[in-house]
Amino acid sequence: MSDDERLARVTLSVVGEPGQARMLDLAGQLGPRGLLQRLREQSDLSDVSAAVTGRLAEVDPERELAQAERQGIRFVIPGDPEWPAQLDDLATAGTLQERGGVPVGLWVKGPLRLTDLAGSVAVVGSRSSTSYGERVAGDIAAAVGLGGRVTVSGGAFGIDYASHRGAVSTGSPTVAVLACGADRVYPAAHREMLTYLGREHAVVSEAPLGAAPHRIRFLARNRLIAALTRGTVVVEAAARSGALNTVNWAQRLNRPVMGVPGPVTSACSVGIHHLIRSGVAMLVTGGDDVLELVGEAGEHLVADPRGPEEPRDALPVRERQVLDAVPVAAGAPLSSIARVAGLGAEEVRGILGRLDERGFVEADGVGWRLGAAAR
Amino acid sequence: MSDDERLARVTLSVVGEPGQARMLDLAGQLGPRGLLQRLREQSDLSDVSAAVTGRLAEVDPERELAQAERQGIRFVIPGDPEWPAQLDDLATAGTLQERGGVPVGLWVKGPLRLTDLAGSVAVVGSRSSTSYGERVAGDIAAAVGLGGRVTVSGGAFGIDYASHRGAVSTGSPTVAVLACGADRVYPAAHREMLTYLGREHAVVSEAPLGAAPHRIRFLARNRLIAALTRGTVVVEAAARSGALNTVNWAQRLNRPVMGVPGPVTSACSVGIHHLIRSGVAMLVTGGDDVLELVGEAGEHLVADPRGPEEPRDALPVRERQVLDAVPVAAGAPLSSIARVAGLGAEEVRGILGRLDERGFVEADGVGWRLGAAAR
Repeated sequence: MSDDERLARVTLSVVGEPGQARMLDLAGQLGPRGLLQRLREQSDLSDVSAAVTGRLAEVDPERELAQAERQGIRFVIPGDPEWPAQLDDLATAGTLQERGGVPVGLWVKGPLRLTDLAGSVAVVGSRSSTSYGERVAGDIAAAVGLGGRVTVSGGAFGIDYASHRGAVSTGSPTVAVLACGADRVYPAAHREMLTYLGREHAVVSEAPLGAAPHRIRFLARNRLIAALTRGTVVVEAAARSGALNTVNWAQRLNRPVMGVPGPVTSACSVGIHHLIRSGVAMLVTGGDDVLELVGEAGEHLVADPRGPEEPRDALPVRERQVLDAVPVAAGAPLSSIARVAGLGAEEVRGILGRLDERGFVEADGVGWRLGAAAR
Repeated sequence: MSDDERLARVTLSVVGEPGQARMLDLAGQLGPRGLLQRLREQSDLSDVSAAVTGRLAEVDPERELAQAERQGIRFVIPGDPEWPAQLDDLATAGTLQERGGVPVGLWVKGPLRLTDLAGSVAVVGSRSSTSYGERVAGDIAAAVGLGGRVTVSGGAFGIDYASHRGAVSTGSPTVAVLACGADRVYPAAHREMLTYLGREHAVVSEAPLGAAPHRIRFLARNRLIAALTRGTVVVEAAARSGALNTVNWAQRLNRPVMGVPGPVTSACSVGIHHLIRSGVAMLVTGGDDVLELVGEAGEHLVADPRGPEEPRDALPVRERQVLDAVPVAAGAPLSSIARVAGLGAEEVRGILGRLDERGFVEADGVGWRLGAAAR
């Protein structure tokens, strides 16, 4: 990329707003330098220019870059080797709540390369989560990490925090995508964690340095979480959770949406159950399910859940049929067992003998009852 | 029905076994009297006759009926006004574990007419349930009852018991379908409940009087629970739960299977989550969902879950857009809010004025922040 293009993108990042769909669309059509030129000419871009052109004169993109660099923050733009190509899917994913589009660039703090997010998994959910949800989110992120994938979340209270922590607990990389500038800390209580991620892994934002976390920026941020990852897991979400906005983006981007069920008596699971019931989310019960769904075909297949094999399972059909007809407690005579089993008395006599040898049945005074091996 | 046919069916019920597929198939083809005649002739029905013909001579069907009547038990057969026609679906539903077929008749104790089961719902699950599962099963059965439908279950420990109790708690009818004779009590600890059901509602069995609860009879019984009802709800089921056998029958009979999710950390929900994930069961979170799925189209529609409406929701789009750009705590100047909102300063000034009047924003020394109505 030419320096000019990079500087034009910095300028647009600073004067524009994250996910400002109309501006990003024009940046795609005209190129960042073309758009800037049109904005400077005050030409017919009224819906963008009103808010943006006023600040154009104030922006010194080289100073912005230098200031970012002093804080260990780089600006990654399309065409850079590190650019996560999956973000380009946003060009055609439309808008939600007037947000959308491919960001002009991402502000990144931390050693992780954004290309490492190619197979990543978003694990998100309620800020007001339950200890159940936090445990499961942590377990899933840990398993995602052990599966060699990066966990992406939003750095928020509750499920986000548990997800980051779960990944870290297995020494796995995890990335926080913020609604505020990558130089800021929100929520303040997560200063320690976000500092750690910015030093060891990565903190990412579309918003320029110093940007505060406005509600509208969370909506723009959610589309990045959905777009950067291979699939989105929602662990707990009430009926109106912000996590459902991320789900909407994942759907538009054709990324799998996965939901972790919980007690139907928990308000924190209402949104999830609705997603599963309506076919939006696939039900997942843990990291294995997630890895199967985001993996390449056949890469990570989950076995169907099975109870422990019982010794009875290894018996031939006829022997099982007889065994099923033997009472647990008080013995029953051969004739009764034969009748219940629906088999002839002679055949049942022989089978009972074989079952007796292997401890499946035992004789009492009256007849036959289950033995130790069958109970 | 002629008395002859009824007596022939009593005889077959006594000498045969519940769900003995080959015998029931022949009874359907030859008629009960025809089958009895063939059995008495010891003709080529080797797989049935060996177990059955030996006892033919001992059976006095009139005495069986009289004995049942003394205990308040009647024998309901196809063609009786009370016969539940939905059982006839078993004629073409095949076999599972060598059980299957339309029963030759049902032994019934209690005032409820079996035709009242036409719109009934099965609520079944683990015997070793959790308090969570028992609560939800009880709530669902209560709601099913209030919806004017009968709850059917198996009278067992755990979910079955909670289901019966939940229905009774709203004064609604509930029916236990037993694997032992309708004159017996199994499990013994449920004597009081089963006595109550036999007096107030109904206890039903395919097995003749005195029959003990062998494992094979539970498998036969499960097909009746699935066939008698409009749909089957499974509340808790471990990976190998017997409730999954009932589910298999419901599937074969094209009855909806419904599963109640639970914590993914609970072994009692593993089987349910697998059913939902594999598309066998629909996820239900309570009685309303169940009533919707078993109801006629449009009869009982569940509203999507929604959080409480927020005052913000009633605002026009532009005003919401500005409101979303106003910070929560420290005020921001008009120019900053206009930029975040992506709107012109003059338009934003007018909108902030209107939002101020309604308490959505308030001015502080620096600029504007959220007001009481928006927090």
